[in-house]
Amino acid sequence: MKSQETLSLGRVLLTGAAGGLGKQLRTRLRPRCTLLRLSDVAAMDAAQAGEEVVQARLEDRAAVHQLLEGMDSVVHLGGISTEQPFDAILQANIVGTYNLYEAARKHGVKRIAFASSNHVTGYYRQDEVIDPSMPMRPDGYYGLSKAFGENLSRFYYDRYGIETVCLRIGSSFPEPRDRRMLATFLSYDDLERLVVASLTAPVAGHSVIYGVSDNTTNWWDNTSARHLGYRPQDSSEPFRASREAAQPKIDLNDPAAIFQAGGFVHQGPFE
Amino acid sequence: MKSQETLSLGRVLLTGAAGGLGKQLRTRLRPRCTLLRLSDVAAMDAAQAGEEVVQARLEDRAAVHQLLEGMDSVVHLGGISTEQPFDAILQANIVGTYNLYEAARKHGVKRIAFASSNHVTGYYRQDEVIDPSMPMRPDGYYGLSKAFGENLSRFYYDRYGIETVCLRIGSSFPEPRDRRMLATFLSYDDLERLVVASLTAPVAGHSVIYGVSDNTTNWWDNTSARHLGYRPQDSSEPFRASREAAQPKIDLNDPAAIFQAGGFVHQGPFE
Amino acid sequence: MKSQETLSLGRVLLTGAAGGLGKQLRTRLRPRCTLLRLSDVAAMDAAQAGEEVVQARLEDRAAVHQLLEGMDSVVHLGGISTEQPFDAILQANIVGTYNLYEAARKHGVKRIAFASSNHVTGYYRQDEVIDPSMPMRPDGYYGLSKAFGENLSRFYYDRYGIETVCLRIGSSFPEPRDRRMLATFLSYDDLERLVVASLTAPVAGHSVIYGVSDNTTNWWDNTSARHLGYRPQDSSEPFRASREAAQPKIDLNDPAAIFQAGGFVHQGPFE
Amino acid sequence: MKSQETLSLGRVLLTGAAGGLGKQLRTRLRPRCTLLRLSDVAAMDAAQAGEEVVQARLEDRAAVHQLLEGMDSVVHLGGISTEQPFDAILQANIVGTYNLYEAARKHGVKRIAFASSNHVTGYYRQDEVIDPSMPMRPDGYYGLSKAFGENLSRFYYDRYGIETVCLRIGSSFPEPRDRRMLATFLSYDDLERLVVASLTAPVAGHSVIYGVSDNTTNWWDNTSARHLGYRPQDSSEPFRASREAAQPKIDLNDPAAIFQAGGFVHQGPFE
Amino acid sequence: MKSQETLSLGRVLLTGAAGGLGKQLRTRLRPRCTLLRLSDVAAMDAAQAGEEVVQARLEDRAAVHQLLEGMDSVVHLGGISTEQPFDAILQANIVGTYNLYEAARKHGVKRIAFASSNHVTGYYRQDEVIDPSMPMRPDGYYGLSKAFGENLSRFYYDRYGIETVCLRIGSSFPEPRDRRMLATFLSYDDLERLVVASLTAPVAGHSVIYGVSDNTTNWWDNTSARHLGYRPQDSSEPFRASREAAQPKIDLNDPAAIFQAGGFVHQGPFE
Amino acid sequence: MKSQETLSLGRVLLTGAAGGLGKQLRTRLRPRCTLLRLSDVAAMDAAQAGEEVVQARLEDRAAVHQLLEGMDSVVHLGGISTEQPFDAILQANIVGTYNLYEAARKHGVKRIAFASSNHVTGYYRQDEVIDPSMPMRPDGYYGLSKAFGENLSRFYYDRYGIETVCLRIGSSFPEPRDRRMLATFLSYDDLERLVVASLTAPVAGHSVIYGVSDNTTNWWDNTSARHLGYRPQDSSEPFRASREAAQPKIDLNDPAAIFQAGGFVHQGPFE
Repeated sequence: MKSQETLSLGRVLLTGAAGGLGKQLRTRLRPRCTLLRLSDVAAMDAAQAGEEVVQARLEDRAAVHQLLEGMDSVVHLGGISTEQPFDAILQANIVGTYNLYEAARKHGVKRIAFASSNHVTGYYRQDEVIDPSMPMRPDGYYGLSKAFGENLSRFYYDRYGIETVCLRIGSSFPEPRDRRMLATFLSYDDLERLVVASLTAPVAGHSVIYGVSDNTTNWWDNTSARHLGYRPQDSSEPFRASREAAQPKIDLNDPAAIFQAGGFVHQGPFE
Repeated sequence: MKSQETLSLGRVLLTGAAGGLGKQLRTRLRPRCTLLRLSDVAAMDAAQAGEEVVQARLEDRAAVHQLLEGMDSVVHLGGISTEQPFDAILQANIVGTYNLYEAARKHGVKRIAFASSNHVTGYYRQDEVIDPSMPMRPDGYYGLSKAFGENLSRFYYDRYGIETVCLRIGSSFPEPRDRRMLATFLSYDDLERLVVASLTAPVAGHSVIYGVSDNTTNWWDNTSARHLGYRPQDSSEPFRASREAAQPKIDLNDPAAIFQAGGFVHQGPFE
Repeated sequence: MKSQETLSLGRVLLTGAAGGLGKQLRTRLRPRCTLLRLSDVAAMDAAQAGEEVVQARLEDRAAVHQLLEGMDSVVHLGGISTEQPFDAILQANIVGTYNLYEAARKHGVKRIAFASSNHVTGYYRQDEVIDPSMPMRPDGYYGLSKAFGENLSRFYYDRYGIETVCLRIGSSFPEPRDRRMLATFLSYDDLERLVVASLTAPVAGHSVIYGVSDNTTNWWDNTSARHLGYRPQDSSEPFRASREAAQPKIDLNDPAAIFQAGGFVHQGPFE
Repeated sequence: MKSQETLSLGRVLLTGAAGGLGKQLRTRLRPRCTLLRLSDVAAMDAAQAGEEVVQARLEDRAAVHQLLEGMDSVVHLGGISTEQPFDAILQANIVGTYNLYEAARKHGVKRIAFASSNHVTGYYRQDEVIDPSMPMRPDGYYGLSKAFGENLSRFYYDRYGIETVCLRIGSSFPEPRDRRMLATFLSYDDLERLVVASLTAPVAGHSVIYGVSDNTTNWWDNTSARHLGYRPQDSSEPFRASREAAQPKIDLNDPAAIFQAGGFVHQGPFE
Repeated sequence: MKSQETLSLGRVLLTGAAGGLGKQLRTRLRPRCTLLRLSDVAAMDAAQAGEEVVQARLEDRAAVHQLLEGMDSVVHLGGISTEQPFDAILQANIVGTYNLYEAARKHGVKRIAFASSNHVTGYYRQDEVIDPSMPMRPDGYYGLSKAFGENLSRFYYDRYGIETVCLRIGSSFPEPRDRRMLATFLSYDDLERLVVASLTAPVAGHSVIYGVSDNTTNWWDNTSARHLGYRPQDSSEPFRASREAAQPKIDLNDPAAIFQAGGFVHQGPFE
Repeated sequence: MKSQETLSLGRVLLTGAAGGLGKQLRTRLRPRCTLLRLSDVAAMDAAQAGEEVVQARLEDRAAVHQLLEGMDSVVHLGGISTEQPFDAILQANIVGTYNLYEAARKHGVKRIAFASSNHVTGYYRQDEVIDPSMPMRPDGYYGLSKAFGENLSRFYYDRYGIETVCLRIGSSFPEPRDRRMLATFLSYDDLERLVVASLTAPVAGHSVIYGVSDNTTNWWDNTSARHLGYRPQDSSEPFRASREAAQPKIDLNDPAAIFQAGGFVHQGPFE
C-alpha cells in the first residue's frame, strides 16, 4: 500500500464541462476517476483517455437519463450560471436539475456534488455573517433556481437516500476581480479541494457548504459543514492592495455595495 | 365612528376560487372587500354583487397580468394542491406563481397572502416541533413548488418591496379526517382569521406562518409570526375521541406515520 | 362509533403503584386499560377487575423481566423518589431502570412513560426559564439517577427503537405546599393528562417534557414537546394568597430559595 | 390564615408618582403597602393614610438618598418619559437613575421595579418578534437613557446583589390610541399585575420583561420572564375595529409605520 | 497600479491621541491618511507633516464640533479609560461621546471606529466564551459608559446611517502583564490591524468586535464580525511561561479571578 | 525568573495509569508534578523519582479515599474504556467515579480532569457537527457511564465547587486506524496539551470539551471551551491517503458507518 495512493472517485459525470469551472475540474478530476464522463450544451474538447464526452441539453430528459447510466457520482455544474430571464433559467436549471435527479434515482447514483451558489442568500448584507441553516434569500431567478435545486436534492435525500453536497460557490476565478470578491473568492485549487471532499466524505447526507477560500474577510460560517473535511488553503489576501487601490470608494447608496449579491441586484427586471 | 366597522380589504384577487378553500373564502371575504375578483382554471358560480369572475389558467401569462390589474392585494390559492407528476406542478405552481408575482410587480400590487403548505417541511418528524425559520424539507413536488413560491416571494419583497405572508396551511376541512389531522387541522373560521390577519396587518414584510388551529397536539411554533395578529379560536380536540377510536393502531414502520408529511411520502415516484 | 369512546391503552405496567402518584394513576388508568399490572416494592391493595398486582423489587432482574411480559407499555414510577445516600439510589433507580429497559427490550415493549424529575435540572436558578434541550444540572443523587434514566432511555430508543417520554415531574400533590410549588405544582388531573398523552401520542420518539400545571409562575418552557398533546388545565393560582401569606419572607442567602432544586440542595452529604 | 390575604409589599418608594402611571399605581399599590412613599418633581395630592409625599428632583443626590431611607423596595417611574433633547434626558434619567441606585445601595434596598421602555428596542421592525435577550436598539435619547438604566441595574445586581426587574413598558393608557398600540397596549390592570409580580416574585435576579397586555398582535416574546409570574388578563382586541376604522391606511414609506418605535423615529434631531 | 499601494484612509480624526494606544495609532495611521487630526485633553507632541494637533476636552461641545469638521472618519479613543467615580465618567465618556456623534452627524462624517471595552461584558465568567450579541454585563461605571457609547452609536446608525465599529478592546500593552491577559492581550500590531480593518471594510454597518490577538486562551468568539476582515497575527503564547511562573496560584474565592473583568470588580464603590 | 519555567501541576493523582493513555501521560506529566501518584487495577511499572504507585480498584471505596489524600488535582482515566456488559461498567465506572468524587470532596481536591468519551454523543451522525451543549446521546453502557460521570461532576461543582474538565476523548492512538479516526484522532502530544490545559487553566468551572486533534474532517465544535486554552497542533491528515486506500468503500447501510459511535453500535446486547 502506497501512502500517496488517493481514493479513486470511480465513475463520475461532470456536467457543465465546457464552462470555466468545468474546464478546471475536468483536468483536475480526471486522474482521480476510473471514468470521467463530460457533458455540456456547448461543444467540448475531444475525449482523452479515461474520458467520455457527450453533448446534451439538460432539458432533454432522455439525454440526461443516458448521461447518468453507470455513474457512481455526479458533479453538477451544468445550466445557466448568470442572471437571465426566468424562462431560460426555468428550463436549464429547474427542469434540468429535476431531470438529473430523476435520472440519478433510476440509475442508482448515490452521491451528487451540486454547484449551488452564494446567490441563494444574496439578500443578506455584507456586514453580516451567515451560515447555511439560515433562511434562503435569493437575489434573482438564478439564485431562485439554485434554491430550488437545494430543496430538490433535500427531497431526493429524505425520500430516496441520494446524498448531495450543495456547494454555494462564491466567486471562482483566477483571482478576485473587485473588492467584493476579497470576501467571496474561491481559488481553483480550493474549488478542487471542495469537490473532492464532497465526493470522498464517507457520509455526506444532505449538506450545504459555502465554496470560499480562507479569505480574511468572510461572510460565511461553514462550521456546520466541517464533517465534510474541506479545509481551504488559499486566500484573497495577496490581491487586497491592488483591488482596494482600483476601487477606493464604495457607494453605500448602491444596493450592489450593501448586499452580498453584489451586482446581481441590478439584473432585471426583464421585460 | 361605529366600533363594529371592519377594515375594508379593498380590491382583492382570490385565485383558486373554485376549490374547497376558495369557496369558503369567497363568501367570507366578499363582505370585507370593495371588489372581490375571483379566478380559477375551473368554472365558478356566477358573480354576485361586488364580485368579478374570471376563468383563467395561471400558466397563461397574459391572462394573469390582466387578473392583477387594479388590485390592492391577492389571496393566492390557485394551482395544484395535491401531489402530482412534476410537469403538471411545474406549470401550475412554479410558472403560475412566477406569472402572478411578475404581474403584481407591474401593477403595483403591494400585499399577497400566498397559500403555501405544511408540505414545505413535511420531512420533519411528528415527534418534533419546528418553526418557520428552520430549513425547508419538502416532501414531494407539491411541497417543492410551495418552497419555490416562498423563496420567490422573498425575492420580490427584498427586491421590489411586495409584501407576502406565506401561509403554510395544515389540513383545512370541515373536520379532521384522521389522527394526523388532530395536529394539522385548520378550521374554516380560523382560515378566515388567518387570511384577514395577513391582509390587514399594518406591516407584513415577508412573513411565514403555519396555518393551524389551536390544536392540543401541535408540531408548529408560530411565535415568530405573532406580529401578524393571527390567534386561532378553534381546536381539533372535540374530534379526538372519534378519530382515535377509528384509528387505534399506528404503524411506526410506516413513514407516513413518522413524518409530518403523512401520506404524501407514499406519492410517487411517477413514471 | 361513540364519539366519547376513548383510546384503549392496552396492557400497561405501572411500577411504583404503592406510592402517592402510583395510587392516583392506578385508579385513573384502570378504566383505559385492557389490563393494568401493578408493581411496587411495598404492599399494595388487592387486585380489582382488570388488574394484576405483583410485589417486586426493581433490583431483582428476574422479577422485573417477568413484570414486562406481555405488556404494551409501561408507566415507570418505581424506585426512590427522594434524596437518599448513593448506594440506595444506585440499586433502586440505576440498576432498577436498567433492568426495566432490558426487560422491555426482550419482551418487545415499545412505549415507556418514565417518571423523571425536575431535579435533573435543579441547579438552574428560580429566576431563569429553561427548556428540555439545555444541559442537565442535577441537584443530588436522586436527580443524577433520573438523568441516568433519561440517557438510558435515549440509548434504548436510538439503538432498539423503544419510545420513551421522560416526564420531569414538578411537585405533584393535592395542592402546592409552599411558595416554590406555585411554580412547580402539577395537579393530579394534569398528571393524568400528561401520562395519557405520553401513552397515546401516535409518535413519541424520545421526548422530554416537564410535568407541570398551567401555573402563572413558570420556570419551564415545554414548547419543544407540544407534539405530545399535553395541555394542562389546572393552576397553582388559587393557592397563591395562602402560600404567600404563610411564607412572606424569602431568604436570598439560602441556596434553597435561589435554585429550582429547593430544599434538595440541603440534602447530603451523607456520611 | 385567610386565603384572600395578600402578601404585603412592605415599605415601598414610588417615584414619578405625579405622572399618568404614577397616579394609577399610587391608588393600586397603597392597600398592599405598609408604607407608600411618593415622590415626583411635580406637586402631588396630599398624603393619605399609609402614604408619605416628598417632592424631589432625581438629579438632587441628597434628596434621592433621603427618599430611599428605610425602604424595602422601589417602583421607579420617575424621570422624563418622552423624547427630549439630550441634556434634559441626561440629568433626569441618567444622573437620576444613578442617584437612585447609589442610594439604594447605601440604604440596603434589595428590589427595584424599574420602568424601562419598549423604546430600548424601538429600531426593530413591526414585522418581527423579539425577546429581551436580543441586542438593544434604542430609538432616541429617551430609549438610550432607559438602556443605560437597564445596564446600570445589571451592574448593581452583579456587583451588589440588588435585584431589578426592568419593565419595558409598551403603551399604558386607558385604551389604545392608534393601530400601533393594538400591539403595544398595556392596560392599567395589567400594569398593576406586572408591578406586583415584579415586587413579589421570590427571586427576581436581574430580569427584563416587556410590559404588554395579552394583545392578539404581539411583537414581544416574554417566555424568558415567565418565572416572574406576570400573566396579562387584558387585550387591545375590543378596540381593534375602531382603531382600524380611524386609521385605514398605513404608509410603508414612513419609518414610523415600519419600526416598533412608532412616532419616536421622527423626534429630533434637536438643534 | 502598484500592488503594494494601500487604501488611503483619507482625513481621519484620532481622539485620545496622547494616551498609550493613541500614541501607537498616531504613528501607525499617519502614513495611511491624507490628514490625521489629533486631539486629547492632555498635551501632545507637536504636529508633524500630515498632522493637525488640537487640544480639547470632549465635554466641550463647541470644540468637539470643530474637531469633526472636514473629517472622513474618526478613531475615537478619547475619554477616561479606567474605572473612576461616576461624575468623571459621565462627563468625559457619556457627554463626550454624545458630543462626538452629534458633531459627526452635523459634519456628515460616515464612519467611526469606537474604542469600546471588554468591560462592557466584564461580569461574564472566565470559564465561559461569549459573543458580541449576548446581553451586556458591565463591570463598573467605565464599562457602563462604553455600553452607553455602543448603544448611542447603534442609534446613530439606525437613525442617521453613521457606521460604527465598536472595538471591545481587551488588554493592549507591549506584553501581557498577568495571567488574565494571556486571554485578553491585544498586541499593538493587531490593534493597528483591527483599526485599519474597521476603517477600510467596504460596509461596516453597526458592528461589534472584541479587540484581541490570536491567543490560545480565548473568552470571545468574533465569528459574527468576520465580515470586517480583522485577522490577528499575534498571540500571548510566548509570554505564557513567565506569566504563569510569576502568578502560580489563583484564588477562586476572589471575584477578580472569576470574572472576565479582573481587578475592575474591586474598584469602587466611590464615596 | 526563567521564561521557560513551566507551571507546576503540584500533587497529581493519575488513575488508569496502566492503560494506553495512562502510560503516555505518566511520562509526560511527571516532569511537571511535585508528586505524581499512579493508580490502576492492573500492575504498573515501579515508581520512579517523584512518583507513587498504588494498585487499587475504583470500586474499593476505602482505597479510593486513600488515593485522594493530599492531592491537588486528579487526572481520572481509570475504569473500563470499552463497551462491556452493564454490571461491569456499573462497578468500575459508575460506582468508581462516585467513589472518586466523594473522596475528592472529603480531601478538598479542587480540580479534576475527567476522561469522558465521544461515546457520550455517539448517536449523532457523521454528517453533523455537534457541540458540548447539545443533549447527550450515548451509544452504549460505556457511553452511559461517561454521561453519568459528566453529570456527577456537574453536581459536585454546583454543590461543592470542585472544578472538572470533562474530556470527551476521540481516538487517541499512535495513528488513526481507519477512516472514522480521520475525524476522531487525538495524537498523544495533543492529549498531553489537553490535559495540561485542563489542569492549568486559572478558572475551569465545569467545562466539557472534545479531545481531538486539528483534523481536517471534524464533527465537534469546541468553540465554547476556548477559555481552557487547548489548541491542538497535530492532525490526522498525513494518514488520510493510506486510510482511504485501505478502506475505499463505505457501506451506508451499516449503522457503524453512519453514526459517530462507529463500531460501538454493534456491541451488545449482552445476554
